[in-house]
Amino acid sequence: MNRETFWPGDDDKLHEECGVFGVFGHQDAAKLTALGLHALQHRGQEGAGIVSFDGARFHAERHFGLVGDNFTRRAVMDRLPGHRAVGHNRYSTHGGPSDRNIQPLFAEFAGGGFAVAHNGNITNAQAVQERLQERGSIFQSTSDTEVILHLIATSRGLRLADRIIDALSEIEGAWSLVCLSSKKMIGARDPHGVRPLVLGDLEGAPILASETCALDIIGARFVRDVEPGEMIIITPGGMESLRPFAPAKPHFCIFEYVYFSRPDSVIGGRGVHAVRKRIGAELAREKPAIADLVVPVPDSGTPAAIGFAELSGIPFDLGIIRNHYVGRTFIEPSEAIRDMGVKLKHNANRAVLAGKRVVLVDDSIVRGTTSLKIVKMVRDAGASEVHMRIASPPTTHSCFYGVDTPERSKLIASRMSVREMADYIKVDSLEFLTMDGLYRAVGEESRASGSGRFCDACFTGDYPIRLVDFERKTALEDEERVAARTAENLVELARIAKAG
Amino acid sequence: MNRETFWPGDDDKLHEECGVFGVFGHQDAAKLTALGLHALQHRGQEGAGIVSFDGARFHAERHFGLVGDNFTRRAVMDRLPGHRAVGHNRYSTHGGPSDRNIQPLFAEFAGGGFAVAHNGNITNAQAVQERLQERGSIFQSTSDTEVILHLIATSRGLRLADRIIDALSEIEGAWSLVCLSSKKMIGARDPHGVRPLVLGDLEGAPILASETCALDIIGARFVRDVEPGEMIIITPGGMESLRPFAPAKPHFCIFEYVYFSRPDSVIGGRGVHAVRKRIGAELAREKPAIADLVVPVPDSGTPAAIGFAELSGIPFDLGIIRNHYVGRTFIEPSEAIRDMGVKLKHNANRAVLAGKRVVLVDDSIVRGTTSLKIVKMVRDAGASEVHMRIASPPTTHSCFYGVDTPERSKLIASRMSVREMADYIKVDSLEFLTMDGLYRAVGEESRASGSGRFCDACFTGDYPIRLVDFERKTALEDEERVAARTAENLVELARIAKAG
Amino acid sequence: MNRETFWPGDDDKLHEECGVFGVFGHQDAAKLTALGLHALQHRGQEGAGIVSFDGARFHAERHFGLVGDNFTRRAVMDRLPGHRAVGHNRYSTHGGPSDRNIQPLFAEFAGGGFAVAHNGNITNAQAVQERLQERGSIFQSTSDTEVILHLIATSRGLRLADRIIDALSEIEGAWSLVCLSSKKMIGARDPHGVRPLVLGDLEGAPILASETCALDIIGARFVRDVEPGEMIIITPGGMESLRPFAPAKPHFCIFEYVYFSRPDSVIGGRGVHAVRKRIGAELAREKPAIADLVVPVPDSGTPAAIGFAELSGIPFDLGIIRNHYVGRTFIEPSEAIRDMGVKLKHNANRAVLAGKRVVLVDDSIVRGTTSLKIVKMVRDAGASEVHMRIASPPTTHSCFYGVDTPERSKLIASRMSVREMADYIKVDSLEFLTMDGLYRAVGEESRASGSGRFCDACFTGDYPIRLVDFERKTALEDEERVAARTAENLVELARIAKAG
Amino acid sequence: MNRETFWPGDDDKLHEECGVFGVFGHQDAAKLTALGLHALQHRGQEGAGIVSFDGARFHAERHFGLVGDNFTRRAVMDRLPGHRAVGHNRYSTHGGPSDRNIQPLFAEFAGGGFAVAHNGNITNAQAVQERLQERGSIFQSTSDTEVILHLIATSRGLRLADRIIDALSEIEGAWSLVCLSSKKMIGARDPHGVRPLVLGDLEGAPILASETCALDIIGARFVRDVEPGEMIIITPGGMESLRPFAPAKPHFCIFEYVYFSRPDSVIGGRGVHAVRKRIGAELAREKPAIADLVVPVPDSGTPAAIGFAELSGIPFDLGIIRNHYVGRTFIEPSEAIRDMGVKLKHNANRAVLAGKRVVLVDDSIVRGTTSLKIVKMVRDAGASEVHMRIASPPTTHSCFYGVDTPERSKLIASRMSVREMADYIKVDSLEFLTMDGLYRAVGEESRASGSGRFCDACFTGDYPIRLVDFERKTALEDEERVAARTAENLVELARIAKAG
Repeated sequence: MNRETFWPGDDDKLHEECGVFGVFGHQDAAKLTALGLHALQHRGQEGAGIVSFDGARFHAERHFGLVGDNFTRRAVMDRLPGHRAVGHNRYSTHGGPSDRNIQPLFAEFAGGGFAVAHNGNITNAQAVQERLQERGSIFQSTSDTEVILHLIATSRGLRLADRIIDALSEIEGAWSLVCLSSKKMIGARDPHGVRPLVLGDLEGAPILASETCALDIIGARFVRDVEPGEMIIITPGGMESLRPFAPAKPHFCIFEYVYFSRPDSVIGGRGVHAVRKRIGAELAREKPAIADLVVPVPDSGTPAAIGFAELSGIPFDLGIIRNHYVGRTFIEPSEAIRDMGVKLKHNANRAVLAGKRVVLVDDSIVRGTTSLKIVKMVRDAGASEVHMRIASPPTTHSCFYGVDTPERSKLIASRMSVREMADYIKVDSLEFLTMDGLYRAVGEESRASGSGRFCDACFTGDYPIRLVDFERKTALEDEERVAARTAENLVELARIAKAG
Repeated sequence: MNRETFWPGDDDKLHEECGVFGVFGHQDAAKLTALGLHALQHRGQEGAGIVSFDGARFHAERHFGLVGDNFTRRAVMDRLPGHRAVGHNRYSTHGGPSDRNIQPLFAEFAGGGFAVAHNGNITNAQAVQERLQERGSIFQSTSDTEVILHLIATSRGLRLADRIIDALSEIEGAWSLVCLSSKKMIGARDPHGVRPLVLGDLEGAPILASETCALDIIGARFVRDVEPGEMIIITPGGMESLRPFAPAKPHFCIFEYVYFSRPDSVIGGRGVHAVRKRIGAELAREKPAIADLVVPVPDSGTPAAIGFAELSGIPFDLGIIRNHYVGRTFIEPSEAIRDMGVKLKHNANRAVLAGKRVVLVDDSIVRGTTSLKIVKMVRDAGASEVHMRIASPPTTHSCFYGVDTPERSKLIASRMSVREMADYIKVDSLEFLTMDGLYRAVGEESRASGSGRFCDACFTGDYPIRLVDFERKTALEDEERVAARTAENLVELARIAKAG
Repeated sequence: MNRETFWPGDDDKLHEECGVFGVFGHQDAAKLTALGLHALQHRGQEGAGIVSFDGARFHAERHFGLVGDNFTRRAVMDRLPGHRAVGHNRYSTHGGPSDRNIQPLFAEFAGGGFAVAHNGNITNAQAVQERLQERGSIFQSTSDTEVILHLIATSRGLRLADRIIDALSEIEGAWSLVCLSSKKMIGARDPHGVRPLVLGDLEGAPILASETCALDIIGARFVRDVEPGEMIIITPGGMESLRPFAPAKPHFCIFEYVYFSRPDSVIGGRGVHAVRKRIGAELAREKPAIADLVVPVPDSGTPAAIGFAELSGIPFDLGIIRNHYVGRTFIEPSEAIRDMGVKLKHNANRAVLAGKRVVLVDDSIVRGTTSLKIVKMVRDAGASEVHMRIASPPTTHSCFYGVDTPERSKLIASRMSVREMADYIKVDSLEFLTMDGLYRAVGEESRASGSGRFCDACFTGDYPIRLVDFERKTALEDEERVAARTAENLVELARIAKAG
Repeated sequence: MNRETFWPGDDDKLHEECGVFGVFGHQDAAKLTALGLHALQHRGQEGAGIVSFDGARFHAERHFGLVGDNFTRRAVMDRLPGHRAVGHNRYSTHGGPSDRNIQPLFAEFAGGGFAVAHNGNITNAQAVQERLQERGSIFQSTSDTEVILHLIATSRGLRLADRIIDALSEIEGAWSLVCLSSKKMIGARDPHGVRPLVLGDLEGAPILASETCALDIIGARFVRDVEPGEMIIITPGGMESLRPFAPAKPHFCIFEYVYFSRPDSVIGGRGVHAVRKRIGAELAREKPAIADLVVPVPDSGTPAAIGFAELSGIPFDLGIIRNHYVGRTFIEPSEAIRDMGVKLKHNANRAVLAGKRVVLVDDSIVRGTTSLKIVKMVRDAGASEVHMRIASPPTTHSCFYGVDTPERSKLIASRMSVREMADYIKVDSLEFLTMDGLYRAVGEESRASGSGRFCDACFTGDYPIRLVDFERKTALEDEERVAARTAENLVELARIAKAG
């Protein structure tokens, strides 16, 4: 847990905050869950947890680090018996290095044990937590997910399902949940359907997972997406589908297609890799370049680069090599070894780049710091021109629905024009995909026609779900600012009066 | 260190056994070494070590696991002061989980401390060790490298350099060494030059490294390859180059181009990635296929696949996704979860492959077990035809020069014809690159013209350096077999005589 | 945490379940707490925790193992800044190896943070917990102490002090508490005053601790005992003493004098060591023996043995040597090495014992298994006679007030007469102190005159505080037994009717 | 291994540097060795190791920390199969925290494996090591024991026994050894017999151990002491006793009786506890005191205090309580918490001491720092007079035979008279046992009559064995001093000449 390192690091990406998985009725429930979480590792690498149920008791294991480093040891897996299990990958380090924040969270209710794994973010968690604390609830984690447990615990509903519906009706935000009680496994997706959740089947055992790649790894059959606003209740007797929440227009996160989801997943009927190649093709059509070579920033820029190369006819090549051994904990740079961060992960392939006009394709630009270094590295390797093409529109707004984004002022696109950004990262040209281009790549005619189906707030600022906590915090800060200014004015008036 | 895992794993590749690095005269010597070892991590992942010298004392840190997990913590790096350092990445688990086998090895000689990092394999280590033990030397590791230390210790040479030359003159095999004494850093490469070793320069500080990618990461300038049979002695006063060993025809390992080296390295004047693309092009020319898609087995098959696609005109696409989070310790498969090994690392991208005739490009086939699973996975994902193309000739012989190969009988190509292999892995067609094709890709006209420059024993069985220990062992086994047969015959004779 | 050991172990003692400590207003608050807990280590060795408050935030460290192994590292102590701290030693392993059960427990109330450290046992915890869960409280630990937190959280009181009084008024049992809020440190002792709690002063900083030995170690002045039923509220402005609970006759645990407390502590005005010596003298008077030597079972039998020797005139000597290096985790005995448990801790000193008639003095007998082995060891070392004298009456009943006792049926004195016990442990004579003798040793005339001041339930079964949970459990078991018997009878009747 | 602690610590004692144990021919060999080492834990607490032999292979486990914390886990013990084992407890931290210094040391000789465990100190180790390094031996540890391995390895003897005799003939100093080869277990004791070594028997399996308490714990029979200069060779066929070394007058360490050995051990036919009681009686006779109470500094002063009390008729009582939970790693004192070191381990029992004239009995005084604090603590607890009586003569010289002593200038008795020491530690009177008194306690008439049997160099400076390395070092320092003074003189002369 010691994060004191000498090593320069840099990771200028948005990060998905979680992956969820559950299986009901299979002798290898915990092992399948570990495999599923491994396939979903890209959605969160800080820690992972599994809760299993053996018919009588619940068992929990939560560990910092990768699934493959923790949930592979026989001793750990032997402590997770039973035919039912749910699991969770966690990205965020919110709340510090305490395993109390690693999900699935678990509570012993009056009616029995209950585990919940959550992907998303509850936008009114703070407000609800304060209300619950007023009535005497004690919170143990700093995870927004814990409000769900307390809302269920304090619901007056008779049956567990009613109490869960009660609880979920009080929260706002993005939530794809997989829950396990002593009788049931429950999957639920918020009415906007911001985060993905799919239903699968392995030899008759129902599976819930964030993405289809988690079904593939265990050889499970993809059944269908869990629908926005749907709650699926799985018991030994079968499966029930409810629509208990107030309906809303769907708003699936379009950035899942751009970067978050694994390319081999199929979401909303669209293969993610194929969408990314179409994005590349749209980009080549909208923002062509005269060049000798299309080079991806690996690995996230690769599919779009292939699409760009195919449509433009410019050859594709691996001009940048990615070192996959790079650790995730290289933080404080040493004084004497500066600017090495990007090289820990990437190296320009001089033999490929020297003397070439290069189209460099990346999926997005967040702070711009990494782009700056990558471009310098490519030029140092001898590229004669660098034309940067970005496989998404400029990222101008923060996400509040389960993605770790910097605050808005840190997003380069919120502060600079495309021209200014091009100067900053020192490219010969810089172009972004248009919003309409992005919508075309996901199969819509344009943003206008498709906006009812996707959340694109990080590109547009059109937030489809209320940001209760954020607005309260902003209002409070505004009040404080007004009060401070009033006080200053009064002091100034007094000074003038006195002077006069 | 607990390797008891439930998780199915499989890694059907040959493995380089080591990477070496050294820097002389830089204030960040140990940190630069850590960065260099990180860039060379593909040459060995079991453990890594660094020995530094601060002008008065030597300091050593040796750890199991990745460089990025151990040599990034400030506490570890603070224990490695000084302006000179050498380091080593280790692959093999020979000798079990003891840090006594993690290099650089170190000894306190009568004349002072001495550290050595070795990439390669000493083919007469066992014979030399027995001779040294007879005279009273005590061995502490099970590493063949330790014989070098004892040979230096027992040499009657006056100066250290003479004693090192003495020692290296007694060993046979492949050895690229980086050594550090209290006065000097020494690089040396066996007369055949089997393993790579390059010389670089960072702001006047000489660097020795296995590959150029370790120079790139720290921004060092590539000076030249250390020549086969060359010994370079670096002191504060400058650099001296000696040729103290009996000369030999060079035999650089051609498999470094096929798989071991990093694609962004330049070896013998050839960019590795470019060689691999040429291999792909040669393969497309020699062994074409009628297909819709060229798909690499990532990541090692990717450059050849790009080369194949370019020459053949068949589109290139990522039909298999690699999960880079896969741990390295997934061993014992559980009974109930079989055949999942390959899926931990790879998943077929159904949306890309369904209904397509696919050319699948991989760098080599070792046991064939992984190919079998990959092909099945690709077919399960809907590919209508699978044409496997291998970017090297059939691997028919074990390597004794620093590569972890299974014994010969485990190599599928030593037991089966290409036709039989195709049946075994269940492809529609299987083709390997020819020997001449491989030589053309590295810039020779043919094997006949280039055989003086490369070791290709793993493809041909033409071992350029004597296998002393192996021959002794084989001779011993033969003797035992003969003796056993003789004894059986005598018993049989006696039985007959008695019966008669 | 791996408790799989080959080593035979045995510890046939009752165990105090906790020690508590708090300091308010000293720059070294956490360090003083660590020292205090170290002095109280005999009250609990499983784990320890400290919560400090730095004026703005609370900080917590909880660790398995000894104080001296965890709270001595600078890194740990640096994470506990502030001038106020409370701490806790824990004995019991109830709830398994989870740090969620290591106290002080902490909760973030609507009004701010709150930490509590508890010595004792709440006899209606289960009943209260069920009531709280019905209304929606979620429990995180399996510690009875957590009900106090939830009762405070759900109290309708306005000020924190009122809410604590509310909460403590609802629980029954033994509780000596030290609590820390962002404004106050609070000490409280149940109206019966079963467990000790003292008030001290270090350079003006108030201290609360289980025993005076924790004051001595830091050089603090002993002020007075916290009274039964007293609640002390400490703020920067001073100290307030309340008596908010229904009054009760005091019942201080008399076994604290016999075994639990440290001999150098002073409790209720009596030096513990002096009481134990008086016990030995009473024992010599009541139950004399003709012998050559008085030998203690070290260390707990030593003071009584000295008292016995002084009064009887028989020489005192160390006939049994205790090995203080013995670990606390020697559990599963190996098949082949039986009966070695006692020898890990004790060895008979043959040179002292051979040929001697020995009075063996121990503080108490629980299961009798250790006595059996000790006696055998003493005889094997050559003692000609063994006269066992026990420095307390027979332990016939379980404790429900904060002591880890086996269930009643495991207590040898609940199943056997003194005569039978003597036969079982194979001594020439066995005698226990009388109840009146014990009361005389603590300064009373007799049990009759002193019974208003002490709890002696473990010797008499007179439980001064209701055992709510235990009675509910027993009643439930009784009901089940009656129901089962009724069912059997009905079946029998049916069988008869049918047969007839 | 992190020794950064805030906690004040102090341990002003001499420390035995090792304990050894071996068993040959028992199915539980490693477990018995662990138990034996546990009984010998007082001879070394830094680390412990066991090497076992299973008929084909050697197995080794070496761990920092207590036997009971490491050699009790089943996983560790399962890695030590076989019917033969040797083990070692290590005190010293020489060489830093590397397990290379934890014994038994092991070497793979040309003739097979060999393990050695050593108690003592080789006084010419440095000289021998330099000679061996000149001829090419490479040392891996910083332990003096390793020279034995190299001497055996380089011996020209034919049989192992001859080579061991060769090796041991070249070393000087104190050595009690237990060795294990693939055929034999060998015990050997230097001709002076400085350190103890005993032979035992468990159901026919021979045992070697430092003290008899290690036989008691496993129920083994004591056979006899291994004699000074004796070498015992144990094979499956039986036992052979040799006297292969040049004979010498015996010099058993008399301090083993004063402090090092466990009181329940029998050495040279004398029970250690009994010797200590006789020491106390001699002390009371030689140096009486008028007082109310005899109080030991526990635990080492206790037997002498009992002896003193018995002879003087002054009552014995426990006026100081020892906290046995104290860790061994409490080092750096915090600024604000000074002088607390002694209280971590001891607390004065005010109720016993207040108003009393106290005879305080301790076994020895090393630096005097602890005595100073103990006396202050006793006075603070109200003692009206403190008469210190020390159960040995003043410790005026360092030990070079296997005991960790400070250099001579740190020994308070080498710098001060008894009168000055009394002033320094602030007692009303201070008296030491006389040399003759000590010899009487071990059964001699006087030092004159008994000096042929014991080493008393720490009291007298009469070193019975040459201090080769120490004399070389001193000679070198003298030379350097002379050279420096000569140089100074020359400079001065030149200055004068110039000035003149």
